[in-house]
Amino acid sequence: MAEIGVIGSGSWGTALALVLNKNGHHVTIWSYLKEEADEIGEKRENPSKLPGVHIPEEIEITTDLQGSVEGKDVVVLAVPSMATRATAKKMCPYVKEEQILVNVAKGIEEGTLKTLSEQIEEEIPQANVAVLSGPSHAEEVSRELPTTVVVGAETEETAIYLQKIFMNDVFRVYTSPDIKGIELGGSLKNVIALAAGVADGLGYGDNTKAALITRGIAEITRLGIKMGGKLESFTGLTGIGDLIVTCASKHSRNRKAGVLIGEGMTMEEAMAEVKMVVEGVYSAKAARELAEKYEVSMPIVEKVNQVLFEGKPAKDAVSELMMRDGRSEYSNLPWD
Amino acid sequence: MAEIGVIGSGSWGTALALVLNKNGHHVTIWSYLKEEADEIGEKRENPSKLPGVHIPEEIEITTDLQGSVEGKDVVVLAVPSMATRATAKKMCPYVKEEQILVNVAKGIEEGTLKTLSEQIEEEIPQANVAVLSGPSHAEEVSRELPTTVVVGAETEETAIYLQKIFMNDVFRVYTSPDIKGIELGGSLKNVIALAAGVADGLGYGDNTKAALITRGIAEITRLGIKMGGKLESFTGLTGIGDLIVTCASKHSRNRKAGVLIGEGMTMEEAMAEVKMVVEGVYSAKAARELAEKYEVSMPIVEKVNQVLFEGKPAKDAVSELMMRDGRSEYSNLPWD
Repeated sequence: MAEIGVIGSGSWGTALALVLNKNGHHVTIWSYLKEEADEIGEKRENPSKLPGVHIPEEIEITTDLQGSVEGKDVVVLAVPSMATRATAKKMCPYVKEEQILVNVAKGIEEGTLKTLSEQIEEEIPQANVAVLSGPSHAEEVSRELPTTVVVGAETEETAIYLQKIFMNDVFRVYTSPDIKGIELGGSLKNVIALAAGVADGLGYGDNTKAALITRGIAEITRLGIKMGGKLESFTGLTGIGDLIVTCASKHSRNRKAGVLIGEGMTMEEAMAEVKMVVEGVYSAKAARELAEKYEVSMPIVEKVNQVLFEGKPAKDAVSELMMRDGRSEYSNLPWD
Repeated sequence: MAEIGVIGSGSWGTALALVLNKNGHHVTIWSYLKEEADEIGEKRENPSKLPGVHIPEEIEITTDLQGSVEGKDVVVLAVPSMATRATAKKMCPYVKEEQILVNVAKGIEEGTLKTLSEQIEEEIPQANVAVLSGPSHAEEVSRELPTTVVVGAETEETAIYLQKIFMNDVFRVYTSPDIKGIELGGSLKNVIALAAGVADGLGYGDNTKAALITRGIAEITRLGIKMGGKLESFTGLTGIGDLIVTCASKHSRNRKAGVLIGEGMTMEEAMAEVKMVVEGVYSAKAARELAEKYEVSMPIVEKVNQVLFEGKPAKDAVSELMMRDGRSEYSNLPWD
């Protein structure tokens, strides 16, 4: 049994707390908001973020950050990507040398273009930072539907330790040394989910969507490998797997914003309609900047940016993608 | 403008004939059945296989095999996989040295475990055999929804020639030298589509399905590379792309049979209910034989076989997959 702090009481933090509690660990969830902590503690449910899911009494709910971090065997960082750096900074004084922090959010910082684990390492240099990612809707994990994820860590020892902490009969955990590839796949997939939504909004079919998903992950893979990630992460659960789940989901905000844009709304109108942060819009910008910086051709990312920020009609963007010069699927494959 | 024969008047052959006709080529469709040829010629529609789609007058319909093959610039072979070898044998006398045949069906022969292009090359040694594959429901192609496919050929010259013949503003064609990888991806994906259907039938969610798709294509990739295919084909349109489209489809027989089995039917009951050939059942057998022959670990294929042919309850199969020993996602990735 391990002592575990989960920083963040959103749907994903709560779902992982349930997994860890089921595995016999002692779990403390830290919430940023006193009202939320009180409500969860009282109702034993998080009605706005994970409605209908019972949170057992054994799980502690608190707003005490120090108590949720200090002395814990593992700290799970599950705050929104925009809040990760600031939260890490606040946690720093309570983190001891080589303490294991597992980041489970996804995102790339505007301006710096840094991944979340890079931000955490800057703010908490003494930490041993790992990541957990994969095709995993929180709603399904909390209902104990079979789910697979990957833990990425600096050392095999840490990865296997975390695999044992998290894994059970409905939550299968693979290990990987490729933190960078895992994080890039998870962050950049939302651009493609948005593009897939646009295709749906235009009334196109499964053929078009499969093409965007497949050629989209190919672009992300080209970029990710240049940035130091490994091919396998992009072809695996944290890359194509996570992208498939996002594109299939009726709940994905990225997909939904894309549908509205495909139906004719501007980006601003779609954002207003969805009423929540649409990460794919920010990731699209970041992906374009990264494509320039690393000199990688990313035609789908480029068209998504033109549609989002330069008023290009979505239908024209798809036509232009279809009518680029004919080429080979993978230019590195030789003809004998 | 090229002279093109399309051998087979099913939904895929007809949809491709429409693409080729739109591109300005002269197309002749060969049908095996006189009644079908007569009906299509008269109604200018194939009501049972592609209902509601108009077949323009410029497209000839015939039962004359010799006239559909002899002297054509390109012959498209679009007959069901079970009939490919026999049809190729009948075509052989009319095929001249280095005439281009493009096979667009998918399958592996029972017993010999040969791909369709290998069978065609055995029956028509003088032919220049190419393949065309990718995420492409015939219904959507015939409605001109944007679609992408890959042409695989022995030489770049042939591939680029075919790319120009087939490509237009809603049908994007990539080239590839990897005929073997293209064919294996297309043939083996149906086993995974069937498994994904089983997960749906068991009431599992998107997480489980994405896991089966991602880990399924990883198995197929391991096998396919050992058999001489290239990684890129399995991560591309003809691999994961085609698998995504099949798993998303409400019309896929493989997925549907899987759903029924997941809901509790035996394989025989599901086959009777679906009332058509369920290719995934045959591919499952072939994949297991190939896994043994090439000594590749394919846990999902193995469980599908146990469910289909050995009476293992589907729920137990999923549990056993989830509870195998924890491992790394890709064993080839080194820890520093």
